[in-house]
Amino acid sequence: MANVQRPDVLIIGSGPAGGAVARTCAAAGKQVVVADYQPFGGTCPLRGCEPKKFLFDVTNVALRRMHMTERGLRGCLSIDWNKMMTAMAAMRDPIPQLVEEFYAKSGITGVHGKAQFLAPDTVFINGIHYEPDHIVIAAGAKPRPLSFPGHELLTSTDQFFEMKELPSRIVFIGGGFIAFELSHVAAIAGAQVDVVLRSDRFLRRFDPAMVECMIEASRDMGVRFHTMLPPNSLTRDHNDLVLCAGEDNIEFRADCVVAAAGRIAHVEDLNPEQGELELNQKGGISVNEFMQSTSNSRVYAAGDVVGNSMELTPVASMEGMIVAHNILNGNEETPDYSVVPYTLFTHPPLSTVGLREEEALAQNVLCKVLEGSAAGWSEYRRIGELYPAYKVLVSEDNKILGATVNGHNSEEIINIFAFAMRTKTTVDELNKWLWAYPSFGYTIRYMFK
Amino acid sequence: MANVQRPDVLIIGSGPAGGAVARTCAAAGKQVVVADYQPFGGTCPLRGCEPKKFLFDVTNVALRRMHMTERGLRGCLSIDWNKMMTAMAAMRDPIPQLVEEFYAKSGITGVHGKAQFLAPDTVFINGIHYEPDHIVIAAGAKPRPLSFPGHELLTSTDQFFEMKELPSRIVFIGGGFIAFELSHVAAIAGAQVDVVLRSDRFLRRFDPAMVECMIEASRDMGVRFHTMLPPNSLTRDHNDLVLCAGEDNIEFRADCVVAAAGRIAHVEDLNPEQGELELNQKGGISVNEFMQSTSNSRVYAAGDVVGNSMELTPVASMEGMIVAHNILNGNEETPDYSVVPYTLFTHPPLSTVGLREEEALAQNVLCKVLEGSAAGWSEYRRIGELYPAYKVLVSEDNKILGATVNGHNSEEIINIFAFAMRTKTTVDELNKWLWAYPSFGYTIRYMFK
Repeated sequence: MANVQRPDVLIIGSGPAGGAVARTCAAAGKQVVVADYQPFGGTCPLRGCEPKKFLFDVTNVALRRMHMTERGLRGCLSIDWNKMMTAMAAMRDPIPQLVEEFYAKSGITGVHGKAQFLAPDTVFINGIHYEPDHIVIAAGAKPRPLSFPGHELLTSTDQFFEMKELPSRIVFIGGGFIAFELSHVAAIAGAQVDVVLRSDRFLRRFDPAMVECMIEASRDMGVRFHTMLPPNSLTRDHNDLVLCAGEDNIEFRADCVVAAAGRIAHVEDLNPEQGELELNQKGGISVNEFMQSTSNSRVYAAGDVVGNSMELTPVASMEGMIVAHNILNGNEETPDYSVVPYTLFTHPPLSTVGLREEEALAQNVLCKVLEGSAAGWSEYRRIGELYPAYKVLVSEDNKILGATVNGHNSEEIINIFAFAMRTKTTVDELNKWLWAYPSFGYTIRYMFK
Repeated sequence: MANVQRPDVLIIGSGPAGGAVARTCAAAGKQVVVADYQPFGGTCPLRGCEPKKFLFDVTNVALRRMHMTERGLRGCLSIDWNKMMTAMAAMRDPIPQLVEEFYAKSGITGVHGKAQFLAPDTVFINGIHYEPDHIVIAAGAKPRPLSFPGHELLTSTDQFFEMKELPSRIVFIGGGFIAFELSHVAAIAGAQVDVVLRSDRFLRRFDPAMVECMIEASRDMGVRFHTMLPPNSLTRDHNDLVLCAGEDNIEFRADCVVAAAGRIAHVEDLNPEQGELELNQKGGISVNEFMQSTSNSRVYAAGDVVGNSMELTPVASMEGMIVAHNILNGNEETPDYSVVPYTLFTHPPLSTVGLREEEALAQNVLCKVLEGSAAGWSEYRRIGELYPAYKVLVSEDNKILGATVNGHNSEEIINIFAFAMRTKTTVDELNKWLWAYPSFGYTIRYMFK
């Protein structure tokens, strides 16, 4: 007879989304089981934001040294790849154990294993049938598979984070967050880097003119970009990997070809049909405004598995909190995606929030567009940054509709714009108020001149 | 017969305060004269924030390299003092000419010379009697003179910014902004640095516990602090300068002793008695709420010369804008000092806004105090910062009353707290809203846990 367990809440996935649900439900006295077939912690701390930001922080010091040539810094910096990766791992590797300990302390049952729906109310994990009151799918996303001949020779981004040596020549396939962020790290660390892209549009979630400024900086650090080149084949020729791409079958020889073609909701392995789980257009779990499955009311979903194209840790946490609330109190809360600032951690970082100019045009939103280079501002001149730029959309009644900033500390500046959007603060107020000086936040005043 | 001129507005001082008045009044069609006996631009760009921040930015890269030992950065950095100062001067030195050109373009008459009141309505500069409708005193502040025997051997902070070589051993007399900021620069650049202080209280405008965290970082970089030691004498002994200080006449041998005992309003040279200018307790121009002299209605004052103990560029600019408005439209506007964020650019920077705990206690303000070390947060762990810390005062109705943060990018974090104070945003809202991740701004959420 099958071993059946009936916890209050079963959560599939132990990342920021699942963690938020688990924490909150356990604190409210619910019996909670969290299952993950990977080490506990999820993408953000183990394979995403955290390790990536570590590599950003280290390479950023090397890059700032380069930018500050002739400013009195003696000595040059380079990257010891192995040491950097070892140090990154030293910060990352204790996390699963810390999560385990947190679970134990909080009365949460952690289970290591793959979860599969057997029925709308039954999930099978490690030989056990779970029949919980509520099932929360927070299984995250996984790399979008590439299927051209030779794809099995590709390096995954997970593998990239484990590379003990930096290959001399790296090709990144893709033009999204991961391709950009890792290509900058690799280029500063000394690799020859090519980014090969299927289409001609990079980073669709950012303003193209601002992306172009960041790409100028990328070119300065030696990253080469190739557009309109869908991959045809990957083969091995002696020590070389040979990628052929595009109509003209252009050849790229490299030591490592990284698949960085975005991520898709991690749904397939769950047996969504058995769970009667409707999927959305993006292949994620289809949910209503309360983050509840549109086809199975026992199920909620949160985070990347929803496939809402955000794929951001703060969004995952927010959704997790909302799911927990709705499980505990009935469907009351809904996520608010109106103001979501986010940053691409390239060198320099590119940050955005709210409406983009192309969206304003498409939606016929009347607004002023304030834009320009920030290269003349002393904040950037002091650190020798060459392509800082900004674009701010201001409504007819003088409020912030959206902003994109390319430059050092843009992740901090964008928080101020997000705050202004939340509070419907006018440009006149932003201009009148005092900000720490000098700070990058202060530079918003220059944008409004 | 005396040469008499009668412009609409005479402004004494060409810094951020005077500049704001000049720009605004000239744009409104007023005939404006700006007088300064020093090169145009004022303290901030020529002898204050801007050069200081340049030195901070350069030494910060060297320090971050040191903090990131064992993180994969190969190579060491040191400071080539001469090159750093030359690069700093290259950014600074074109400014007076740029200001001259701006004046010419804007129809503002720039005059180089000392201004002295001859009568309440008459100011004498370079042989000319100015009898303007309005006189604006924006003469800034100057280093507080020290008068102990041998004080003539002291190096002024202005001279410090001109030093072509870094002395091996430097003593800073003082415990305020300048002493701290320059002592960190000098220590990272390789000097042996002692800070000698009359009292036992550093940086009175910051929370003492947060100051202590910053001082821990200072000690790590070799800066030594000595309190309760008022200077007795400074003498030369062969190649040494010998400072004797305190009851026990403790001896400090150095190559350079910097007077950094704060700044006082630059008033004396103006002949304040002839101008019938009442002074306030701090020795600055006494003004009413409209920034108008309390004793001479023809006169307004703005910036450091008011001696309101702020001495901040954004405050000076704000006051200048208010003076211009009140000259052009009659007394209508008053400065708002309720939310003034500011940062001490030590390594790490120390930032604060609003109420401090000791003020709350003195004023019997009921509030929660959230405080702690931030050393465990990944933002600081990644960059190897050891003493980050925060203290946030939250009102009974859950709003921010004040905050102090010690740590990298605290100048950006403090802008968010300032924004929250301006908009009376509750902690619950701050916690619910999304911030770019990872960013230092995001860490406010950890403070509220």
